[in-house]
Amino acid sequence: MISEHDILNLFGENVRKYRRLLNISQEELAHRADLHRTYIGMIERAEKNITLVNMQKIANALEVNIEDLIKASNHGKKAN
Amino acid sequence: MISEHDILNLFGENVRKYRRLLNISQEELAHRADLHRTYIGMIERAEKNITLVNMQKIANALEVNIEDLIKASNHGKKAN
Repeated sequence: MISEHDILNLFGENVRKYRRLLNISQEELAHRADLHRTYIGMIERAEKNITLVNMQKIANALEVNIEDLIKASNHGKKAN
Repeated sequence: MISEHDILNLFGENVRKYRRLLNISQEELAHRADLHRTYIGMIERAEKNITLVNMQKIANALEVNIEDLIKASNHGKKAN
């Protein structure tokens, strides 16, 4: 079970990871997602509780699935 | 690529699906997630742009991973 605090950190880390994989700046990501650069910085630092619509905007801008942004890199998944 | 509008619908449908699988009411889910019943109703009807922290609260209350709530069903089957 992921805590409410940890999910913001996980999301922010994943945004940074995929942004760096694309080799683009926070400013460029903000431009592609139609958001502000300072907002992207706050998201990467887990300083803001992002909404689902903005999560989707960022996922689209990063060309990933929104699930990829909330997945722990190792084995975060429960068996079911 | 999922649109910003469709993601709210997808999330709402998944919350309803997993809530019904647990056989609990909106009121019970609200209680378990420490949210309001009317808020759960709005989320299931995609009337509200939920935040990531509240998504995690709902996922924990439904005993699923947050990814499960934003995944399109692969099997073309919806719970009713």
